[in-house]
Amino acid sequence: MTSTDSPTLTLADVAEQLEARLVGDPSRRVTGLATLREAGPSQIAFLANRAYLKDLPGTRAGAVLLSPELASSCPVDRIELANPYLGYAALSRLFDPLMRRERTGIHSSAVVAKGAILGEGIEVGPNAVIEAGVELGDEVVVGPGSVVGADSRIGKGSRLHANVTVYHGVVIGARAILHSGAVIGADGFGFAHDGAGWQKIAQLGGVILGDDVEVGSCSSIDRGALGDTVIGNDVKIDSQVQIAHNVQVGDHSALAGCVGIAGSTRVGRHCMLGGGVGLSGHLTLCDGVQVTGMSLVTNSILEPGVYSSGTGAMPNALWRKNAVRFKHLDDLAKRLARLEKSGRSG
Amino acid sequence: MTSTDSPTLTLADVAEQLEARLVGDPSRRVTGLATLREAGPSQIAFLANRAYLKDLPGTRAGAVLLSPELASSCPVDRIELANPYLGYAALSRLFDPLMRRERTGIHSSAVVAKGAILGEGIEVGPNAVIEAGVELGDEVVVGPGSVVGADSRIGKGSRLHANVTVYHGVVIGARAILHSGAVIGADGFGFAHDGAGWQKIAQLGGVILGDDVEVGSCSSIDRGALGDTVIGNDVKIDSQVQIAHNVQVGDHSALAGCVGIAGSTRVGRHCMLGGGVGLSGHLTLCDGVQVTGMSLVTNSILEPGVYSSGTGAMPNALWRKNAVRFKHLDDLAKRLARLEKSGRSG
Amino acid sequence: MTSTDSPTLTLADVAEQLEARLVGDPSRRVTGLATLREAGPSQIAFLANRAYLKDLPGTRAGAVLLSPELASSCPVDRIELANPYLGYAALSRLFDPLMRRERTGIHSSAVVAKGAILGEGIEVGPNAVIEAGVELGDEVVVGPGSVVGADSRIGKGSRLHANVTVYHGVVIGARAILHSGAVIGADGFGFAHDGAGWQKIAQLGGVILGDDVEVGSCSSIDRGALGDTVIGNDVKIDSQVQIAHNVQVGDHSALAGCVGIAGSTRVGRHCMLGGGVGLSGHLTLCDGVQVTGMSLVTNSILEPGVYSSGTGAMPNALWRKNAVRFKHLDDLAKRLARLEKSGRSG
Repeated sequence: MTSTDSPTLTLADVAEQLEARLVGDPSRRVTGLATLREAGPSQIAFLANRAYLKDLPGTRAGAVLLSPELASSCPVDRIELANPYLGYAALSRLFDPLMRRERTGIHSSAVVAKGAILGEGIEVGPNAVIEAGVELGDEVVVGPGSVVGADSRIGKGSRLHANVTVYHGVVIGARAILHSGAVIGADGFGFAHDGAGWQKIAQLGGVILGDDVEVGSCSSIDRGALGDTVIGNDVKIDSQVQIAHNVQVGDHSALAGCVGIAGSTRVGRHCMLGGGVGLSGHLTLCDGVQVTGMSLVTNSILEPGVYSSGTGAMPNALWRKNAVRFKHLDDLAKRLARLEKSGRSG
Repeated sequence: MTSTDSPTLTLADVAEQLEARLVGDPSRRVTGLATLREAGPSQIAFLANRAYLKDLPGTRAGAVLLSPELASSCPVDRIELANPYLGYAALSRLFDPLMRRERTGIHSSAVVAKGAILGEGIEVGPNAVIEAGVELGDEVVVGPGSVVGADSRIGKGSRLHANVTVYHGVVIGARAILHSGAVIGADGFGFAHDGAGWQKIAQLGGVILGDDVEVGSCSSIDRGALGDTVIGNDVKIDSQVQIAHNVQVGDHSALAGCVGIAGSTRVGRHCMLGGGVGLSGHLTLCDGVQVTGMSLVTNSILEPGVYSSGTGAMPNALWRKNAVRFKHLDDLAKRLARLEKSGRSG
Repeated sequence: MTSTDSPTLTLADVAEQLEARLVGDPSRRVTGLATLREAGPSQIAFLANRAYLKDLPGTRAGAVLLSPELASSCPVDRIELANPYLGYAALSRLFDPLMRRERTGIHSSAVVAKGAILGEGIEVGPNAVIEAGVELGDEVVVGPGSVVGADSRIGKGSRLHANVTVYHGVVIGARAILHSGAVIGADGFGFAHDGAGWQKIAQLGGVILGDDVEVGSCSSIDRGALGDTVIGNDVKIDSQVQIAHNVQVGDHSALAGCVGIAGSTRVGRHCMLGGGVGLSGHLTLCDGVQVTGMSLVTNSILEPGVYSSGTGAMPNALWRKNAVRFKHLDDLAKRLARLEKSGRSG
């Protein structure tokens, strides 16, 4: 038996955990989740999007999570709840092998500085490094090869996967998840030009991550120049994201992959940035702003709503002849205005 | 002598390895490759592109790889073959110091879990970590500081460079090359909104890489939400690439640096994505699609061919006056249509 | 006391170090830097931008760095110098806890190959790996978990933070700073197509970084295919940057986050690339080129100046109706020309 085996739950267990209504055999055992189309008799499926309603009649799932109004079409046992997508999220966590792994303490190859303050039930993986003055809350997991720099604090129940780097003086809240390759607290990009070249500005601020923050693989959150870079509670950050010094991101915002945010920009609460979005520095985005993928934002946005830039791909031959016109847009507009004027005056 | 020294080959060796025709001294010794312009007498040069034909008459190379039709212009020994660029590729591998490094077994500082299944002739570098249930095929190299998570399998002859992270339950085929900082199998970006904030959707799927896959430095391939993220055989992925959960990439496709692919998108076989290309989620790109650099693809592409978006850089003053017109394009188009109509009716 | 504590300096110390004029109490002690608005009596503030002049009268700072012409408005002790921003940079380094950390030698868990040449006063952190043939100059710091590949050389006073990877045969100058997750010398992206699939071109070149280079977290600088990838002196590279094989970047250039530079492109001296800028391969950018954020450069730039592409974000509804017109730009231009012609001939 390995540490990534799935658990076995009865449908009664599932219904109880989800506070949902079971219509079916409470003793039926299930060992995982799958789509309606792919699930077998030992798996639970879910229907959270009417686009998949067509897959319901033929499903071979052991049971289906769905809303009461669709219950009558379900050919197998069912678990009814108002929001099946939230139910799926909750159920996915029940089946998550990581949730059930026992904490294994401090591996003999880990290097933990004297005086580090270690909570109860923690795990520090092989070849991980905990520097002086660090505080790890209860049940914190520091994965293999991860490094926590001097005087940093990591809140209860947070998990650093393998090969994560947290610099010195970083504060991370409770229940954070930091994926491999993530780097929290590297220097912001600050230099003064002396006429000949660059003089480094030491980055003396820190980074503060709230509770329930997730940071994807290979993402960077830089430390502040003077004050701190601040990521609010329940902020979700995907992979390959760059957050520069002194950025502030409000609670519950979500940043998709490859987003880049330049220095000192403030993103509000409940914002959503699509993949590859770039925000210039020193901007303010108010609460509730959504920006679609690969848009460039160079001005503050002070009204909630959806914002976009760019143009979508088209066949190269078509693109070539149109793109070349872009540099004549101003000329086209002026010529059009002249024509209009001559038409009116003619 | 160090581990990165170059080998010495005779021209006879080279011709035999490349199955090519040598015209020259079979006992001449060469120790490396260089361009026509830079090669000295102990190096082989190659001519694979007519743009460099001008460098041929003056070359000081020990020998030149080239096609028979250009042979007469070659002032030095030559190795003739139909496709000199393929010949260069093959020859480069003969001179690759990594190919000739001996496997050194398992370093005493590496942490290998009991029960891991280890093939013949493997190497596990200093401070690497192999978790429980892992299978490493014959001749696998796991570089210093790399971590292979529980129950993952890595096929014969694959190489993980230093500080690579493979999560649990990942399957990697034969002859893979994973560069430093690459992360395979981190959680996909999945959350359900409960009205107040985000509920994590545990990412229960895995990642499957086919045979002969290369993944560049600091690239991320996320694990699937339910099913797997699947990268086909002979797929080449450059640095700083983000591949989200449940993406599928078909055999022989190549993804240049900084590409981002959002969740569940399927890229066909023999596709080529230029640097910085972004694909939205849930799209399909058929076989044989090429997308030029930094294009944004928001719709499926069902015909092979070359696709593009965006506009190239121009002097800022010119750009400013044109870019500001972009938000009036629709207005311009309508006004033009009105003028045309009035002209016809007038 | 921890390793990240701040030092205490007197104003006399500060003025002497900055070669500036103190007007105030030379024995006043300060322990850090802050903004005019946030600084307390034990901190120094600075005024480098007239936008913050409004904060000067109310500051509670222990002293203010500012230019002589603004001195009369300063309500507290002051340190006068011609360029307060450079003064701030210098002072920030005085307060940098990393500058004052003692080198701790080679940690017992580090793995240093026999025959590596180690300078005086170096530090090799826990679980770091130094391969055979490496040369570390005096006062080099190799952070925890970092790996330096065979035969690489790192110049005097350079610092690799935690979990940095330097491949084999890389040359790094003096006083470099490499942030966590950075990867120097991974293979460039080179393959030859044999009609059926990809044949790897071994990347036989190296990487050379000049003196005073900084590389941000999770950035990649690939090794050359034949010759080297070359980064000049005093080049500053932010996080999440991708520099492909055989790129050359001239002295004193600065590359902001998420920049991508394709193979063999040459960037001049004193260039500045904004965040997310993409440069195609085989281009030349002359000295003194600035490219604004997220611009795509597909042609060489031979005149210094500022260059841009793209369009900024706007409300999605407005964007939709304009973006859809982009593919008709050529048509619009032709129709406009026809109208103009008919108007003239009419």
